[in-house]
Amino acid sequence: MNANEKRYAIGLDYGTESARAVLADVADGTVVATAVADYAHGVMDRELPDGTPLGHEWALQYPQDYLDALESTVRAVLADAGATAEQVVGIGVDFTACTILPTDETNTPLCMSDRFASTPNAWVKLWKHHAAQSQADRINDLAMDRGEKWLKVYGHRLSSEWVLPKVLQIIEESPEVYDAAASIVEAGDWLVQQLTGERVRSSCNAGYKACYVKGEGFPSSEFLYDARMTGDILAPGDRAGGLTPEWAERLGLRAGTAVATEIIDAHAAVPGCGVSGQDEMVLVMGTSTCHMLMSNERAFVPGVGGVIEDGILPGFYGYEAGQSAVGDHFAWAVRQGLPDDYRAEAEQPGLSAHDVLTERAASQRPGQHGLIALDWWNGNRSILMDADLSGLLIGYSLATRPEDIYRALIEATAYGTRVIVEEVERHGVKVRELVACGGLVQNDMLMQIYADVLDRPIRVAEAQYTSALGAAILGAVAAGQNGGYLSIGDATARMVKPPSSEYAPNREAAHTYARLYGEYLALHDYFGRGELAGNGPRNDIMKRLRQIRTEATVDVQEADRS
Amino acid sequence: MNANEKRYAIGLDYGTESARAVLADVADGTVVATAVADYAHGVMDRELPDGTPLGHEWALQYPQDYLDALESTVRAVLADAGATAEQVVGIGVDFTACTILPTDETNTPLCMSDRFASTPNAWVKLWKHHAAQSQADRINDLAMDRGEKWLKVYGHRLSSEWVLPKVLQIIEESPEVYDAAASIVEAGDWLVQQLTGERVRSSCNAGYKACYVKGEGFPSSEFLYDARMTGDILAPGDRAGGLTPEWAERLGLRAGTAVATEIIDAHAAVPGCGVSGQDEMVLVMGTSTCHMLMSNERAFVPGVGGVIEDGILPGFYGYEAGQSAVGDHFAWAVRQGLPDDYRAEAEQPGLSAHDVLTERAASQRPGQHGLIALDWWNGNRSILMDADLSGLLIGYSLATRPEDIYRALIEATAYGTRVIVEEVERHGVKVRELVACGGLVQNDMLMQIYADVLDRPIRVAEAQYTSALGAAILGAVAAGQNGGYLSIGDATARMVKPPSSEYAPNREAAHTYARLYGEYLALHDYFGRGELAGNGPRNDIMKRLRQIRTEATVDVQEADRS
Repeated sequence: MNANEKRYAIGLDYGTESARAVLADVADGTVVATAVADYAHGVMDRELPDGTPLGHEWALQYPQDYLDALESTVRAVLADAGATAEQVVGIGVDFTACTILPTDETNTPLCMSDRFASTPNAWVKLWKHHAAQSQADRINDLAMDRGEKWLKVYGHRLSSEWVLPKVLQIIEESPEVYDAAASIVEAGDWLVQQLTGERVRSSCNAGYKACYVKGEGFPSSEFLYDARMTGDILAPGDRAGGLTPEWAERLGLRAGTAVATEIIDAHAAVPGCGVSGQDEMVLVMGTSTCHMLMSNERAFVPGVGGVIEDGILPGFYGYEAGQSAVGDHFAWAVRQGLPDDYRAEAEQPGLSAHDVLTERAASQRPGQHGLIALDWWNGNRSILMDADLSGLLIGYSLATRPEDIYRALIEATAYGTRVIVEEVERHGVKVRELVACGGLVQNDMLMQIYADVLDRPIRVAEAQYTSALGAAILGAVAAGQNGGYLSIGDATARMVKPPSSEYAPNREAAHTYARLYGEYLALHDYFGRGELAGNGPRNDIMKRLRQIRTEATVDVQEADRS
Repeated sequence: MNANEKRYAIGLDYGTESARAVLADVADGTVVATAVADYAHGVMDRELPDGTPLGHEWALQYPQDYLDALESTVRAVLADAGATAEQVVGIGVDFTACTILPTDETNTPLCMSDRFASTPNAWVKLWKHHAAQSQADRINDLAMDRGEKWLKVYGHRLSSEWVLPKVLQIIEESPEVYDAAASIVEAGDWLVQQLTGERVRSSCNAGYKACYVKGEGFPSSEFLYDARMTGDILAPGDRAGGLTPEWAERLGLRAGTAVATEIIDAHAAVPGCGVSGQDEMVLVMGTSTCHMLMSNERAFVPGVGGVIEDGILPGFYGYEAGQSAVGDHFAWAVRQGLPDDYRAEAEQPGLSAHDVLTERAASQRPGQHGLIALDWWNGNRSILMDADLSGLLIGYSLATRPEDIYRALIEATAYGTRVIVEEVERHGVKVRELVACGGLVQNDMLMQIYADVLDRPIRVAEAQYTSALGAAILGAVAAGQNGGYLSIGDATARMVKPPSSEYAPNREAAHTYARLYGEYLALHDYFGRGELAGNGPRNDIMKRLRQIRTEATVDVQEADRS
């Protein structure tokens, strides 16, 4: 490699519907090329490709889609930038999590075999697969009864999205799949294993999703079962291995190119935002929102999904909380359709339905629409950690319009974020600064509402694709002295530009939102915790509705079969 | 008049948006012609025609629209049927209520004078004008404090829709209008006064809307103020007078033609359905729903709007309850817009958005959509009698579709009807039979849901325009021995065909709906009464949201002015 030539790192960002590759200049982080590939099979939530039906709350993916996206996006960014194989010093990968699949002893996914092609439990369970809630409930009860000491690390409650419930669902519903599985692995780890031939796992996924505690390991099989968590644990940015000759050829890169240990997609945004300090919280705001906080304090916050030492950045306790639907709420609202005059506006060049609703909602004062929502269209991940909760809207009148609902949903997600921030601080963990990234930060109204509801300034990350940039940074760190960096801190200091824009709270709006937030909290505690002014019986209406819905659906399925 | 010639009665049905005339054969009730006219000014809820802005919850009309509709529809039915003036023996009028206007000593509406054209309080306050809630609250408190004995007749609570709150709003906000008013009169009575030149009022309106109790009169002015309820009280079907020469000429009828004392529109449906017996309840199901029950029992049911002796049919205590929005909910849902594929269906000839949503919702089992609504988009008229309540939908998921919401709203209105029926029966008043009429009875799915939710059979009235037919029946009774009938019973026995169709409850659906109704009741009592399993502090969130909304709107109006 010519010393004057630019050096690049590839960052691969695997999202829910598609994968993105960026080619980043190692010297200053400039993204010189980017490419996206949709997954051919997307998210399967009704049936497998062969028509095998799926139950309520299932969400599966097909692993070949990940490989196809890998090849097409990497080749595209190289071609786009005119970069040579020699210029690429490292590759980093971030991935949705917990997104797991069972594999055989050759590391081949079981769902890609003829034997298990029609068995849903053999496929990739996507993070938002919510069909293992009953398993999660029982695991939580058992762990509580046994006094498992790792439980407090996870807010005293495992999510149904995580490894143990998803694996238990395989064991209970498809024991033949479990018996045939040599390993059950995060899709991001599996991808790195494919690229390198090395059986490594990320400490990030293991810590946040599989109850792995540094110095103590995974929960023992005596607790429940063997979760098939085979392989070595390395930290994100650690060199997992070198690119295999086969993959080097398929991607047009050099064999042996450094591949970093994987990181969870939202977590990759932390280096991607340039955050490397104490008491800083990163909000990755997209379909869902992840909240990642770096702290020197170790506290156990009920309902916060994990406090993991070195889990995000080395040297800090990393806290991760989440809202399981944020942008998904607004997409849902748009899917319901629009009145004719709104549609006519949205069909103008350069405008979307979201733009039209935002514009109509933006002129409102806080409280003017008279609505409050509970942002639980996809359950509640933090603080309640209950996938069985559902959405609520209160305050409808005959004058309620689509933009009112749209704004109420935005506000509800902001209230949900405030619940998380306040709950963390109530447990003695300071949140000094908020930095936001993700697709939603482009919506000015939304960002101002968040600043007003939280009554704090919010800075917006400079990079457009923060997770992909974070993955590229980890690729550069994996390269180390071979053209990269020796630490994540060194890399972010060079490769990330500081935030330049900030939303400051409006005093008057913040005052009204404080009143509305009080109403939100009362509904939150009543429907989510069964608390009414601190006591009173729980109202489990959302769960009962879900139960009745499940029964009605089983009836329909039985009628269809007969 | 040739003895072989047919004799006709004209029924005039004044609704919220339009007026309808029917020409009915006095011999057997056959409707030989019908005509509709929309009100040119419709419902004014944002501004007067000259741009004077209206506050939240206002709903006004313009009296000239009533006269224009009168002339065009009567002339149309006569022309359509080829009927002569001599063949028409009587005219009956039904009207929305409480819909009131102030008039001067010449019986001219004050809003039609230059002096008051820009004064909202001088215009017709439509039944669904809800801006007098604070007046209603204070009147209720005062009546309770003074132990006014007429209060129990009205379920211990006056609605903000009724005469006293609406008049008090005029007095407080526009004393100059009150001072100039020689009379404040129901629009239906005013129309009859115009036609006959006689100052008569209907005992139906006076009883149900103006706190007039047979044998005791109106509340004395010592209680609160003089409500300007001038004129004689007659019962519906009584001859108010003969048609004036001027109106005879305008309508193409004979001077002196019998004009019946007016009846409230929903109440006209009782004779129009042919109901003349004890323990029968008529549901008039349209934009809103009225529930009218004939009974020999006099009981005071909290939250039921009136138990009036001879108020509906002579010889019975008439109970009237109501749901202030029913069809309005479904129209609201359609106004929100539809997804593209739904729209494409709805644009096919002969199909409406309502048809498309109904078809998609019809295949669902009870509970399958996972939603429950509180049907309070326009407040709650019975049993809670609180216009400040608002709508709620709970159970949303990302998979919730427009037909799910549509069906949940239909179900919620059925639950609301069940609350009324159960509350009446709980106070010892039997409901033996349900007969439904109104525009919504054409929706098979809706009617079956009502039968399943109520777990009772529901018969459907045979006539298409039951209120208009009921008005025509009263016109025939007003004619008496001059070509009509001597009693309402005689007239309905001849002029109404018995119901031929009936919806029977499905056992399995009724069982699921019983469970869902329990959930509805818990929400109803929690948000409506502040009751939680019988106690617990009231959650007035809906009222607080309304208060915050009002404040926000005042801010916007002030900003607009400055």
